[in-house]
Amino acid sequence: MQKSLDSLSGNRKAVCLFSGGLDSTTTLYVALSEGYLPLAVTFDYGQLHRREIEAARMIAESLNIKHQIVKISLPWGGSSLIDAALDIPENRSVLEMSEGIPSTYVPARNTIFLSFAMSLAEAQNCEAIFIGANALDYSGYPDCRPDYFELMEAVIRKGTKRGVEGKPLTIKAPLLHLKKSEIVKLGAALGVPFERTWSCYRGGEVPCSTCDACLLREKGFEEAGMHDPIRLTL
Amino acid sequence: MQKSLDSLSGNRKAVCLFSGGLDSTTTLYVALSEGYLPLAVTFDYGQLHRREIEAARMIAESLNIKHQIVKISLPWGGSSLIDAALDIPENRSVLEMSEGIPSTYVPARNTIFLSFAMSLAEAQNCEAIFIGANALDYSGYPDCRPDYFELMEAVIRKGTKRGVEGKPLTIKAPLLHLKKSEIVKLGAALGVPFERTWSCYRGGEVPCSTCDACLLREKGFEEAGMHDPIRLTL
Repeated sequence: MQKSLDSLSGNRKAVCLFSGGLDSTTTLYVALSEGYLPLAVTFDYGQLHRREIEAARMIAESLNIKHQIVKISLPWGGSSLIDAALDIPENRSVLEMSEGIPSTYVPARNTIFLSFAMSLAEAQNCEAIFIGANALDYSGYPDCRPDYFELMEAVIRKGTKRGVEGKPLTIKAPLLHLKKSEIVKLGAALGVPFERTWSCYRGGEVPCSTCDACLLREKGFEEAGMHDPIRLTL
Repeated sequence: MQKSLDSLSGNRKAVCLFSGGLDSTTTLYVALSEGYLPLAVTFDYGQLHRREIEAARMIAESLNIKHQIVKISLPWGGSSLIDAALDIPENRSVLEMSEGIPSTYVPARNTIFLSFAMSLAEAQNCEAIFIGANALDYSGYPDCRPDYFELMEAVIRKGTKRGVEGKPLTIKAPLLHLKKSEIVKLGAALGVPFERTWSCYRGGEVPCSTCDACLLREKGFEEAGMHDPIRLTL
C-alpha cells in the first residue's frame, strides 16, 4: 500500500462504491494504487447482513479516507437480503449460480448505487466511479454484466451535466473479468486486510459457509492456494 | 376523472414519479386516465421548496391512491434546490433557459428517481414508470431529454431481473414533447386540481414569479388562455 498512500496527494478524485466485502475492498485498494483520492460510499439499504457496514467503516477508518454511509430505504423489498421472510439460497454449485437470478438479487440495486455515485461524482468533481462488480464468479445478477456498465456510462454522458460538458467521468470495474481466485491474489498483492472484510449474506457471528457469497469466497481462496484469514480470526 | 377512476379496478400497476408540481400531477392523471393503478412516489431529497411534498401528499390523499414518500440524502449538494448558499436564477427568458444548465440542476436526480422507481416497479410487478419530464418548455436539464429516457429503458432491459426476463416495464413520459400550454390544457381536460400543485423552486407562501418553474408555468397558462388558479387561492 505504500505506493498508493504516497500518491494520495494527487487530485484525481474517485467515488468508490464500498460495501465492506472482499470485492469492493479490493477495488478500493485498486483505486488507491492507481493514485486516486477515494470518496468511499457505503449504502445502508436495510441489508440484513449489517456486519458489512461495520466492516466498511473500520476499513475506511484504518485507511484514513473519506467515507460516507448513505442510508436509503427500499420498503418495497423484493430480495432475501432485505426481507427476512425470503430464503437465501444455500449450497448452490457454481453451475446453479450461473442459471437464473436468485432471491438475493436486490431490484435495481446497482443502478441505485451508481446513480448516487454519479450525483456525488458530479458535485465533488470526481473523474471516476469504482465498483467491485464481477461477472465471472458471481450470483448471476443482471446489473453486474459488462453491457450493463457500458449503458450506465452512456447514461453519465447523456444524463449528467458533467457528461454533457464532456468532462471525464468513467465507471471502473477492475474486477469485472477476473476469476475470484484472481481477485484474491490481486487483493493480497495490494495488502487488502481480508480478515476485516465481510462477504457473507447472513449477519451471523461467523460466515455461514452456505450462501453464494461464502461459497464463491471460499472457492476463490482455495483456487488461489491461500487461506482466508477471516476463518482464523473469527 | 370518472373514466380513470372507473378503470382503477384494472391490474396494470405503474410507478408514478410525483413531485406535486403541475407536470407530475398531470402525468399522474394521464396514468389514471390510461387505466393504470398508480403507485405514486415522492422524493424528499432535501429540496428547499418543501411545499411540493405537502402538495403531493394532499393530491394523493384526495385521489385515494397509494403514495410513498421516499427520503433520500444528497449531502454532497451541488444544486441551488438543496443548498441555500447557491442562487436560484431569476427572471430568465425562455432563450436563456435553453442555453446551458442552471444551478437548479440536481446532479443525477432523475437517474436516482428512476432507479428507485425501477426497484419498486420490479418488486411490485408494475408494467410502467410514469415521469412528468418535458423537453420543450424546461430548464435545460440533461436528464429530461428523449435520448436519456431511451437509455434508461435500455438499463431496465439489461440491468433488471424483470427486463432480462422480458416482462414489460417501460418508461412513459407523456409530456415529453408537449409545450407547457399543451400540458396545461391536458391537465385541465383531465381535471387536475392546479390550485393544489406546487411548481415554484422557492418554498415561500406564494409562488415567487421569478424562478424558471414559475415563469414556465405562467407562460403555459397564458398561452393556453387560462388563469392559474394558484394565483387566486393563495
